[in-house]
Amino acid sequence: MTPEFNLIAKYFTRPTQRATLGIGDDCALIVPTPDCELAISTDTLASGIHFFANADPCKLGHKALAVNLSDLAAMGAQPRFVTLALTLPSIDPAWLAEFSRGFFALADASGIELIGGDTTRGPLSITLTVFGEIAAGKALRRSCALAGDEVWVSGTLGGAAIALKHLQGNTVLSPAHIEAALAGLHTPIPRNALGCALVGVAHAAIDISDGLVADLAHICERSNHAASVDYASIPLSPALRNVSSELARTCALAGGDDYELCFTAPAAQRDHINAISASLGIALTRIGEMRAGNTHVTVLDADGEPMTISNAGFDHFTP
Amino acid sequence: MTPEFNLIAKYFTRPTQRATLGIGDDCALIVPTPDCELAISTDTLASGIHFFANADPCKLGHKALAVNLSDLAAMGAQPRFVTLALTLPSIDPAWLAEFSRGFFALADASGIELIGGDTTRGPLSITLTVFGEIAAGKALRRSCALAGDEVWVSGTLGGAAIALKHLQGNTVLSPAHIEAALAGLHTPIPRNALGCALVGVAHAAIDISDGLVADLAHICERSNHAASVDYASIPLSPALRNVSSELARTCALAGGDDYELCFTAPAAQRDHINAISASLGIALTRIGEMRAGNTHVTVLDADGEPMTISNAGFDHFTP
Repeated sequence: MTPEFNLIAKYFTRPTQRATLGIGDDCALIVPTPDCELAISTDTLASGIHFFANADPCKLGHKALAVNLSDLAAMGAQPRFVTLALTLPSIDPAWLAEFSRGFFALADASGIELIGGDTTRGPLSITLTVFGEIAAGKALRRSCALAGDEVWVSGTLGGAAIALKHLQGNTVLSPAHIEAALAGLHTPIPRNALGCALVGVAHAAIDISDGLVADLAHICERSNHAASVDYASIPLSPALRNVSSELARTCALAGGDDYELCFTAPAAQRDHINAISASLGIALTRIGEMRAGNTHVTVLDADGEPMTISNAGFDHFTP
Repeated sequence: MTPEFNLIAKYFTRPTQRATLGIGDDCALIVPTPDCELAISTDTLASGIHFFANADPCKLGHKALAVNLSDLAAMGAQPRFVTLALTLPSIDPAWLAEFSRGFFALADASGIELIGGDTTRGPLSITLTVFGEIAAGKALRRSCALAGDEVWVSGTLGGAAIALKHLQGNTVLSPAHIEAALAGLHTPIPRNALGCALVGVAHAAIDISDGLVADLAHICERSNHAASVDYASIPLSPALRNVSSELARTCALAGGDDYELCFTAPAAQRDHINAISASLGIALTRIGEMRAGNTHVTVLDADGEPMTISNAGFDHFTP
């Protein structure tokens, strides 16, 4: 056995539970559940782009999986399987032990099973592909919002963005808020239980990875409807209370990395959604509505006037 | 739409044929074929490790997919879907156009459909995850070789390795062999039709990505049997005819990147396998047999004496 294979074996091979065949062959083998669709998503986290090179490996293992689980949540799919392609500058057993610890802690909590992977030498980068299952035809798509739907978000927004600005020295958070904001940035909790609960309730959903306006705009584009959002109704992260209103607005509207869900649902589902909120212990807040017309996102201030949105979202290729 | 999304849309979004939902939502959606297992594999190709930074992007698009299709071939699975995570130092439309051209040409020829992806800024790296389907319980595994099985390989070996040495200036190939050897290195043809034809015929299979001895050793380890190979019976690449016998031996036994299949089958299947060879126009050669005892690969010279194998295979973490 070569070092590469030893490496995989030591940190990432565990007995499979659900898969027919896991790590160790040319492919993994899974038996899909009858009458279900498979939801599949892939995301890369690269050092210097998505995380600092000296990031805590345990938290990084958590976050790499969380970001991908969040895509399954946005479709309402039950997490099942994941593959991990890891590019490493060197073999660092301590780093690998911590990374795998963070990864598997969230994997176990989410019911997702690692079934395959690849390790390569190079600048640190993590690519995961996740597989979830959803009853055929029931997935929450971006394209199914209807005019008159109410727009909802889970949790609070802007916490990850303000935590990043704090780490970059661009703002100073009050001590009372630092811990929670940093936890939101480094170890976000994907909303999988919520996503599954919204199946049959919501019309359209997306996870907020690039910022509320940018992500809601994807629902608008794919559904061919406009969205109108009341700024005052957006649930702001507590960490935004002590910063300037301009900075709070930027973080809330254009801050990436929150991994909350934004979804649309008919007004008739309002009680049902509030019951889901109570049942899961996750705040769910109505922030606006879908409208016929163009495919723009309009954010209204307290006077009902459209606000100017300067930075529409996070984009890896625009500095 | 941000540049990142435009980029994906322009070069990689095509109407889906088989998938329920392709690129453009949080996840892709597929409907698995009833009574089939899904075979899943992921592989990264990184600049400077698996290819030169100035590699022809069209050939690179082909090779990245070929390497992953080869894993499906080794399981006997029919190629169905693929996701592509692309890390790019910058947006270069000419590069993307050529990369996608090479990628889609092989995808179309192989019947595999791109259903999702991610683009990230960073050092050039390509991670694909491929999905194939195989009748439940019929996949070709590394673990199912039996004592007495004959060991076979497809095509010829060592061509990719000697082509790489030629490019690195470590040897000079005769003009008659350069073109074919370079084609084998840059645009290998994955053996998917062969892999599917071997279902129910072969006991165990693997694709030769790290070198014959290293890959056959995986079958030995997983099957808990030894393998004995007659060196004289190994089908050498024509490009090895004009190099030293030592170099030829290294390339044939330890040369990576050939992406031929190595498989084991009972002697009773010999005629069947020869018929498959004739039907597909792919040379299939018996090179040895599986034996009870240890889990080693022994290569015998013309006198039946064990040869010394210095370099057991390609490993990204051993220089």
